[in-house]
Amino acid sequence: MDEFFELLRFPSISTDSRHRSDVEACAEWLSTRMESAGLQSGIHPTPGHPVVIGRNEHEAGRPTVLVYGHYDVQPVDPLELWESDPFSPVVRDGKVWARGATDNKGQFFAHLCGIAETIEEAGKLPVNLIMLLEGEEEIGSPSLRPFLEEHRETLACDVIVVSDTGMVAPGVPTLGYGLRGITCCEFAVRGPVRDLHSGVYGGAVANPATAVARLVASLHDESGRVQIEGFYDEVAALEDWEREMWRGVPGMSEEDLLTVTGSPGSHGEEGYTSAERLWARPTAEVNGIWGGYQGEGSKTVLPAEAFAKLSFRLVPNQDPVTIMDKVQAHLEKHCPAGVTIEVERGHHGQAYHTDPHSAYGKAAQEALLKTFGRDPVLIREGGSIPIIQDFKEVLGVDTLLLGLALPDCQIHSPNENFTVENFEGGIRLNRVLFEELAGC
Amino acid sequence: MDEFFELLRFPSISTDSRHRSDVEACAEWLSTRMESAGLQSGIHPTPGHPVVIGRNEHEAGRPTVLVYGHYDVQPVDPLELWESDPFSPVVRDGKVWARGATDNKGQFFAHLCGIAETIEEAGKLPVNLIMLLEGEEEIGSPSLRPFLEEHRETLACDVIVVSDTGMVAPGVPTLGYGLRGITCCEFAVRGPVRDLHSGVYGGAVANPATAVARLVASLHDESGRVQIEGFYDEVAALEDWEREMWRGVPGMSEEDLLTVTGSPGSHGEEGYTSAERLWARPTAEVNGIWGGYQGEGSKTVLPAEAFAKLSFRLVPNQDPVTIMDKVQAHLEKHCPAGVTIEVERGHHGQAYHTDPHSAYGKAAQEALLKTFGRDPVLIREGGSIPIIQDFKEVLGVDTLLLGLALPDCQIHSPNENFTVENFEGGIRLNRVLFEELAGC
Repeated sequence: MDEFFELLRFPSISTDSRHRSDVEACAEWLSTRMESAGLQSGIHPTPGHPVVIGRNEHEAGRPTVLVYGHYDVQPVDPLELWESDPFSPVVRDGKVWARGATDNKGQFFAHLCGIAETIEEAGKLPVNLIMLLEGEEEIGSPSLRPFLEEHRETLACDVIVVSDTGMVAPGVPTLGYGLRGITCCEFAVRGPVRDLHSGVYGGAVANPATAVARLVASLHDESGRVQIEGFYDEVAALEDWEREMWRGVPGMSEEDLLTVTGSPGSHGEEGYTSAERLWARPTAEVNGIWGGYQGEGSKTVLPAEAFAKLSFRLVPNQDPVTIMDKVQAHLEKHCPAGVTIEVERGHHGQAYHTDPHSAYGKAAQEALLKTFGRDPVLIREGGSIPIIQDFKEVLGVDTLLLGLALPDCQIHSPNENFTVENFEGGIRLNRVLFEELAGC
Repeated sequence: MDEFFELLRFPSISTDSRHRSDVEACAEWLSTRMESAGLQSGIHPTPGHPVVIGRNEHEAGRPTVLVYGHYDVQPVDPLELWESDPFSPVVRDGKVWARGATDNKGQFFAHLCGIAETIEEAGKLPVNLIMLLEGEEEIGSPSLRPFLEEHRETLACDVIVVSDTGMVAPGVPTLGYGLRGITCCEFAVRGPVRDLHSGVYGGAVANPATAVARLVASLHDESGRVQIEGFYDEVAALEDWEREMWRGVPGMSEEDLLTVTGSPGSHGEEGYTSAERLWARPTAEVNGIWGGYQGEGSKTVLPAEAFAKLSFRLVPNQDPVTIMDKVQAHLEKHCPAGVTIEVERGHHGQAYHTDPHSAYGKAAQEALLKTFGRDPVLIREGGSIPIIQDFKEVLGVDTLLLGLALPDCQIHSPNENFTVENFEGGIRLNRVLFEELAGC
């Protein structure tokens, strides 16, 4: 636990260039920790933040397992909503509170602790291990795919294990076999060359803040269905067994979602359950919108420009580039008169989907059963881990998503936390899982 | 001109408490100057900055004219953009360059100079005069309405003259007979109790930023017409003579507006010219909108709340409170499912309108014709000067807006200036105007 706290104290915020040295210091610390666990480790520079790799002695005839994690974290604002400092971890109510506690330091560090324990007790691991930790997941992993391509041979493996997803409820082991993809953009709407007095010019000059609002509003109809032309064209339909299994997954009713999020009312695409909306349907979300005066009181300004950040969650078989082409066309077509629009594309990643009933999938189900004492539920995830699709494309290998995050872990939000119980469960899971995978 | 420069050297910035003594010194100087011009003057303390009053000997049977001005000025930052010190006035290219040169020291001081000349030459003025100079206009005149109410009897008058607006172009005398009113509000839309991960929850939880955008978008149709039910019910129609006169006003074409604002394209309510949109049609403007992540890069957050600040410019005969009732009803009715809305009302003021063809209006037109050698244009203004409506409500008197500001005078900005030609024109205007008003 002391070492876990050391790891959490690094403010390794990958999107903020002021934290570059913190990200690097975190990588150094991890490499040292891998060595002390009995692995051979190295830090690999990239154009962005470094990749840390740890390996054991590989032996012929054993499956090679790649354990992936990311040591970078999300920004922490609004800081005033944190009950304790995001980079001064504390244990309170059986949980560790810190930025990165769940996403993702706690989850991959549980694996590393499991590995260290096994080596300490048995002298070696039952599988060939490659542990790969990157520092750019929260900014879309721009360097990792080139890194995979460059190190295709040394990273060759049979199966990939990632704990960066969720358990549907405390004590309910969960195997994820799919992730939504993502494609992001930001757009700027510009009107007059400077902010104008809204009395002197209001009514005869287009207001960029109004235009941004109209563009964001144009993304959906009143029932929540995305209005971008062709947005749903390639969407794969749900299988019958999925709809049936998901109906029984705890914590996924509309009421559960209202409870866990505190939302005042239900909302979502008609004709789908909450689980289906989150795991198998694409979305259009505005992640940020701004323009004009945000201070106290009123300022009667007609702003010169306004902005929005959008992200789109994608499902099989939507292509991120095709979707962003459609998004950009939609925004340009619907941009009101009197202003100009500029769309800047962000990162993207394909949705991921694998068969949970494969040999490795069954081994994972068995490990989850043995660790947590009940049959796992099989789910997809609403979030995106684009790198999982990259693993598939570059290394040709499927990924087992063995999530340890709990519904109220508050990742990406103030007061992120990770239960001590799941941290310890993750350590046990790693040990059982490697045993099961060794038998495949 | 020496005295004008002395007046301009006072850094009488009303919003900045460090300049409190400068504001007071300016008031002292003005009171002394009124006395030397032949008026009886007094300085009246208020909870804020003092009011300076000057009067001549009132005689029965003559109209009483109240000349209003303000001796406080806007802050000067960004100071580095000034070509000469804002409080060291200089004449360059036929203009006086200094903070307050146009707004409002130059304009009211021209009146005071005209008054002094008339008294010096004729021994007395042809009208009963009350000159009222306040020191809080740039901070919203908080003390003036109470002052008017307290001194209702001693401020009783027949007509008010204000030179604090614009000439539509150099050499084009301009009589303003209307101002738009205003009513403001801010609204908050709230959804989940904290920011959520847009992958984990996106699609099954309403997004407050989307809701704010939809609400702002709901304010207008595509052609720019306000969609709030009953918004236009009480709007007074334009008179035929107004539409005809405004077609001939220089500097008010759509092309002129694009040039002066740098806007990329025209926009406004269909069926109206730019002048009509600005001076006689009400507006709904978003002055600020914000929610979610605004920093560098992307953050895939589903924000807990989002906000917008709105202001509505009003025309005769719209009532600010009735309009805000309709705005609030509209926002609450159109608020999407899954979020809550809270509307907070801001300040408001009625539109002002007087008849430019009244006896005093005709006298003002005649004075402008005689001073500048051509028929004045009769316009309204898009902005709001709440004090004008206060004069109407407290003193029951109409105001003649005899603007001397030119389009490139840069009030409220660096390099504020006032042409020597308009300063001298203002002196002549005062003398002719009082003669004309004496005949009413």
